[in-house]
Amino acid sequence: MRIALDAMGGDNAPEVTVEGAIWAAREHGVQVLLVGQEELLAPELAKHETAGLELPIVHASQIIGMEDEPAIAAKTKQDSSMIVGMNLVKDGEADAFFSAGNTGGVMAAALFRLARIPGVKRPALTVHYPTVKGHCLVLDAGANTDCKPEWLLQFGVMGSVYAQTALGIEVPRVGIVSNGEEEGKGSTLVKEAYELLKGNQVNFVGNVEGKDIPYALADVVVTDGLTGNVIIKLSEGVTKFLMGVIESEIKSTAVTAIGGALAKPAFRRAKKVLDYAEVGGAPLLGVNGVVLVGHGRSNSKAIKNGIVAAKRAVEAGMLNAITQRLAEVQL
Amino acid sequence: MRIALDAMGGDNAPEVTVEGAIWAAREHGVQVLLVGQEELLAPELAKHETAGLELPIVHASQIIGMEDEPAIAAKTKQDSSMIVGMNLVKDGEADAFFSAGNTGGVMAAALFRLARIPGVKRPALTVHYPTVKGHCLVLDAGANTDCKPEWLLQFGVMGSVYAQTALGIEVPRVGIVSNGEEEGKGSTLVKEAYELLKGNQVNFVGNVEGKDIPYALADVVVTDGLTGNVIIKLSEGVTKFLMGVIESEIKSTAVTAIGGALAKPAFRRAKKVLDYAEVGGAPLLGVNGVVLVGHGRSNSKAIKNGIVAAKRAVEAGMLNAITQRLAEVQL
Repeated sequence: MRIALDAMGGDNAPEVTVEGAIWAAREHGVQVLLVGQEELLAPELAKHETAGLELPIVHASQIIGMEDEPAIAAKTKQDSSMIVGMNLVKDGEADAFFSAGNTGGVMAAALFRLARIPGVKRPALTVHYPTVKGHCLVLDAGANTDCKPEWLLQFGVMGSVYAQTALGIEVPRVGIVSNGEEEGKGSTLVKEAYELLKGNQVNFVGNVEGKDIPYALADVVVTDGLTGNVIIKLSEGVTKFLMGVIESEIKSTAVTAIGGALAKPAFRRAKKVLDYAEVGGAPLLGVNGVVLVGHGRSNSKAIKNGIVAAKRAVEAGMLNAITQRLAEVQL
Repeated sequence: MRIALDAMGGDNAPEVTVEGAIWAAREHGVQVLLVGQEELLAPELAKHETAGLELPIVHASQIIGMEDEPAIAAKTKQDSSMIVGMNLVKDGEADAFFSAGNTGGVMAAALFRLARIPGVKRPALTVHYPTVKGHCLVLDAGANTDCKPEWLLQFGVMGSVYAQTALGIEVPRVGIVSNGEEEGKGSTLVKEAYELLKGNQVNFVGNVEGKDIPYALADVVVTDGLTGNVIIKLSEGVTKFLMGVIESEIKSTAVTAIGGALAKPAFRRAKKVLDYAEVGGAPLLGVNGVVLVGHGRSNSKAIKNGIVAAKRAVEAGMLNAITQRLAEVQL
């Protein structure tokens, strides 16, 4: 198993990417191809004891950064770690690619080098969303702001296959985001996609309201990329806001401040439950290769988790499963 | 000042509606017309000391409940508290109407009896959304799932006027919900509405991402009704989920449990900051009358606040201001 890692991707690269790669290689026997600037990666690697681990550096001189315009960067930065990594997958030298860098850049590079699975209308960005039961999968999380009903059906199918093969959920429940739980609620897009989704091609549970997403009413939550992006970012914003309000209220009196100090470990654990950076990787579904992206804030554990998630998706034959299932779907 | 109150509206009516009405009448000198079933309202009123207060009951035999389909109920339940209340406004017997009942029902009743302000394409549901600076106004919160760019411009204008007249914000900042802060991000609808909004007819601050809504980057946040509804309900869901995670983590060890007990007043205050039911009323903007809706969970204080907010909107001449500003707007 060879996973190509964007060693330059993420806020804390290459320190945490190299650490995460070593961790994954040691604990999971993965060969991790460290894609990036050799002059930075070699000394970083030398800081660690890596005897017996397979961690070859694949040099790539450029970086697609957070500030880069994805489509332009993917075309002009041919020697970037993202493009070089995708080439490794395309040429069969790596089984999968994982990056915690610019998500749009990864998507553009994947489309540019790997293209879509035949039959896929649009690939989708997915996100693991924290719920009372662990996580659900939200897609599209921002790749396609204007969607067609058929695309949402495909998102449901691809999300189901990923949940089955890589997450081990036997019969994933698929829901669609709407402004009311009853059938008939929603925009024209939602209502038309609802009709397609209930055609028994996925285990469709109907509309899911905003308030129900954290309550795990569905394992796979489909929506257009604008709404999906708002769901992810708003959840981050509300969590941060709420934590801030609680903190300032706790500090406002001496007694509650003492209570807050004693309860601190609980807050730390709660934050962890709700932190995206802990999860690791989520797949770009619909591109013709196993490609996962992680949060820019990924720490070394999240990098390790992302590599392991990529490994699991490869072992589970996710790509073939998606290709087969999509071929059976009636649009 | 006469405010018609839907005395039958909300989860805890008529107990809290009558209490809220008495409170508003006593503290703010408002005459509150209690619209609803006299046989329930008279004994409820008799429980309180109301000498010197003007709290006439206007009998309405029917109720538009939470389970009612709004458009149908507004047509068939002609003697419901909502329709009777709207008639009072239409006939000039009340200056405004406030209800904590079925929001869709209030909207349907308002459209049915008061119609739109001339020139208004679609009325919008607004919500006061808690932020680090108090509240911002989010609209549309669910009345129009499929929107046109011109409607979003009108939402921005109407929201601005409400923020100016009723909330006292001199130059309200108007933002549009998108999946990125830079101009050019967003769906076709968002991009077209962006162009209209930046035409200097409102104080437009551009795109607002989900994570920024609680951080008060705009006073008036415009969006389509599906996204708006998801924003409101997801925020409720995330808040409840987060509180649940914190609570269960606090209870998981003895020390943190003691800390949690000491910090309890701080949690109570934090919950209050984030509780919609505390705010009172938010206006239906675009209908030809001052109509405000409150949360179904409203307590008597929220009912009082809703009545006071309606009074303020009337005193500030909100309806005329909206009519005038909209007449000037170039679509």
